[in-house]
Amino acid sequence: MNEQFFDFVSIQLVKNSKASLYVQLYDRLRELIVSGKLSHGYLLPPVRRLASGLGINPGTVVSAYKLLEQNGYICSRAGSGSYVAEITGSIAAADEPVAADTDLDMFETKSAMLLANNKHCIDFASAMPTPDLLSIDDFKNVLIEVLDRDKGFAFGYQESQGFYPLREAISYYLQAQGIKAQADNVQIISGAQQGIDIIAKALLNFGDYVFTENPTYPGAIAAFRSRGAKIVEIGMENDGMNIPELENKIRSFRPKLIYAMANIQNPTGYSYSLAKRNRLIGLARRYNAIILEDDYISELDFSGVPLAPLKALDRDQRVIYLKSFSKIFMPGLRLAFLLMPPPLVSKVLAVKHHSDISTSGLTQRAFDLYLRQGIWQRHIAAIHSIYLERYHTALAAIQQFLPPAVVCHRPRGGLSCWLSLPAGLSARKIVADAESRDVLLLPGTAFFPRRPPDQFLRLSFAVAGPEKIVEGVKILGEVIKSQGTVL
Amino acid sequence: MNEQFFDFVSIQLVKNSKASLYVQLYDRLRELIVSGKLSHGYLLPPVRRLASGLGINPGTVVSAYKLLEQNGYICSRAGSGSYVAEITGSIAAADEPVAADTDLDMFETKSAMLLANNKHCIDFASAMPTPDLLSIDDFKNVLIEVLDRDKGFAFGYQESQGFYPLREAISYYLQAQGIKAQADNVQIISGAQQGIDIIAKALLNFGDYVFTENPTYPGAIAAFRSRGAKIVEIGMENDGMNIPELENKIRSFRPKLIYAMANIQNPTGYSYSLAKRNRLIGLARRYNAIILEDDYISELDFSGVPLAPLKALDRDQRVIYLKSFSKIFMPGLRLAFLLMPPPLVSKVLAVKHHSDISTSGLTQRAFDLYLRQGIWQRHIAAIHSIYLERYHTALAAIQQFLPPAVVCHRPRGGLSCWLSLPAGLSARKIVADAESRDVLLLPGTAFFPRRPPDQFLRLSFAVAGPEKIVEGVKILGEVIKSQGTVL
Repeated sequence: MNEQFFDFVSIQLVKNSKASLYVQLYDRLRELIVSGKLSHGYLLPPVRRLASGLGINPGTVVSAYKLLEQNGYICSRAGSGSYVAEITGSIAAADEPVAADTDLDMFETKSAMLLANNKHCIDFASAMPTPDLLSIDDFKNVLIEVLDRDKGFAFGYQESQGFYPLREAISYYLQAQGIKAQADNVQIISGAQQGIDIIAKALLNFGDYVFTENPTYPGAIAAFRSRGAKIVEIGMENDGMNIPELENKIRSFRPKLIYAMANIQNPTGYSYSLAKRNRLIGLARRYNAIILEDDYISELDFSGVPLAPLKALDRDQRVIYLKSFSKIFMPGLRLAFLLMPPPLVSKVLAVKHHSDISTSGLTQRAFDLYLRQGIWQRHIAAIHSIYLERYHTALAAIQQFLPPAVVCHRPRGGLSCWLSLPAGLSARKIVADAESRDVLLLPGTAFFPRRPPDQFLRLSFAVAGPEKIVEGVKILGEVIKSQGTVL
Repeated sequence: MNEQFFDFVSIQLVKNSKASLYVQLYDRLRELIVSGKLSHGYLLPPVRRLASGLGINPGTVVSAYKLLEQNGYICSRAGSGSYVAEITGSIAAADEPVAADTDLDMFETKSAMLLANNKHCIDFASAMPTPDLLSIDDFKNVLIEVLDRDKGFAFGYQESQGFYPLREAISYYLQAQGIKAQADNVQIISGAQQGIDIIAKALLNFGDYVFTENPTYPGAIAAFRSRGAKIVEIGMENDGMNIPELENKIRSFRPKLIYAMANIQNPTGYSYSLAKRNRLIGLARRYNAIILEDDYISELDFSGVPLAPLKALDRDQRVIYLKSFSKIFMPGLRLAFLLMPPPLVSKVLAVKHHSDISTSGLTQRAFDLYLRQGIWQRHIAAIHSIYLERYHTALAAIQQFLPPAVVCHRPRGGLSCWLSLPAGLSARKIVADAESRDVLLLPGTAFFPRRPPDQFLRLSFAVAGPEKIVEGVKILGEVIKSQGTVL
């Protein structure tokens, strides 16, 4: 094939497919590259020309190009377009399509890669910040400092529990927030997802019951199900779990584990009242369940009065506290920790050991300095002020542009708003219609372990800046109002 | 307490305990440091003084100090001794003792940290190279190159299957060795142990049967048992599994998975004959089992005629090929891959995703350059020539100094010799006696899933240089000859 004349208009995209147009275009272009039909140095068509040739929005092309660049298939040079990257060669065509959008995690993480400065697409789907917010120079400096200091030890064996100085630095960090913590009760892990998986393996046997909030984080459901556990959902209200429901079900099912996000829950943004925190812990004590508290994003509490985690109320060592350093701020870093009740430390350590021996020593050593030198805290402060503005912008825009029948309980913080639609509207339909207008957001369905109601939307402002937020919410308002229901 | 006068001689060590003296000493000193009894800047006693005060060998003290340094509790300055590190503070005393030596992995990895230039102790226990063999500057350069090139993307979200350019670089690396490989069938993982764990989760349900060689790598047993699988051992002969035994058992148990190391098996060093490779694959095909091939250390084949992996014979996509880049050469890096049969790619990807989302993107990007720029291959070549000398030295010393009744089948390569003792000798007793003479090695017992015979020793030359190897094998010969049995 003479690639100079490759006919891009022959690319087939299916509108109204489950897969986003940009994901489809990414897939088609990726196939052309890995099959060698477009080879190294090939200049891809300019965004607007390809968009008009395919009859799609330029934003869709930009998104597909970004995703290709992120994954190393193409490289872009400012002012001169996008080229097929040097690394591609004679690899045969890919069999595996990228996952459909119905796989939330894949979708979420992929849309995370749409850049904030994408001029066409407004991304309310991703709950991960864009790479431009990451403080690369600081981290580079601590990496170099570690390599110069530790030499080969930086790549040598690491204790499975984690690099001691890092565990200690974490214990100080927690103590400063009023949480009793000792380095010996800290288990370093490779991200929050691994923490959930390790706790599932350490505590659950086939057929055991686990309670989760409903809705909840789907990655947790996947880990519990993989372990052969049975999931029982407890309805989430805007001040925490439905307590009578919890009480009834805990008596019947005797769960080994309760997975909860007490502060700024994902996806709802709800936080537990103090009374419900105490009831949850009390019931766990009475029925001998362990609570896994996933502190998803409490650094971004915008209420001015940050809440302590459940763990701070844990008097009889019943709460495992899970916190990621990478999830929100450096997702590719893969670093998190568990603060363990002492009786569970050695069991969890053994599971960590047979799961992956240890977390990258280099990462641990670098992050140890990052934390000790106060860079992490400065980074959080910077991120906090950026998102505080977006948070207020999003809430104001929702109030201004969405019909009052769309309910949004004001979250204390975080990166998302949870929108509840009035009867008669379909969240999926709204998501599809919004996408056709280049506004991406998530239907709530992905967050319900079963029988997902088609009634919720999660609107995240992790990626879009203030102007985009206003523009996107305005479009969303128009989409909702166009659904033909009296609002 | 006035730490200037801390009475180190009050430290209690138990000789003939299960825990090595150096691990006990490490534990005691660590407790003094984390409890604040020895605070920042405190100068520890010189090695020889502490050794004579406690009535132990200086090598034991050196080993304990090295382990403390490795884990960040102390720092050593050349010529001026060892100080309690800055990071320690008012942390309360540790409850968790370090694992006893009976936990092979812990022991192995801890002893990995004894430096090659330790003048007193000869370490034949660790099968990991010492940090001085790691090419730190090269890796630092690729890290800096990645950070300058990719900026925040280096910490952004990574595809769960792995960074595409790295997967492609791996496929080229495999193709160069005659293995059919495509980037789309490569799954990046965080070390070989995670590979075993992920395959266990992807393929095994509670109660399924898994076949392993006997003896085998204990980390695999731990992962399979954690999954609720039932282990069936197949005797390992010096040319591969006992085939009649495999045939009988595969008919009865119908295993889902067979875990095998066809080249330079751990711990025996045995490699499969071509006939046995074909029988293993043929039986797996007939009884519909998947083979997980762990290519532990085939880079260090010293025979001059390296064997292709089982995977090269895999005509009907039945072999999963597992290979670590970090296990032997950069254990703290946590990077490995699975070459998957295409039908299993998406299942394994989903399990990877709920296990830890993805492997560190920074590590993947840096290793991609490391591989593409040929640094990895140069590093392997350098390591190869260092270990070739040790291998010949160890085999010659075994022939010279050990009684002929101690049988050592010459391995094709690797970092260990597997010694079979004549009836009447106890491997555990020999290990204990050798340790009292500052020679550390492993009894074979740890490698048998059940009913471990007290008849084997694993002697590794990953850490000791040629002179130490000769000295240590000579001592081992004396220890064996002193056991009172006619040899």
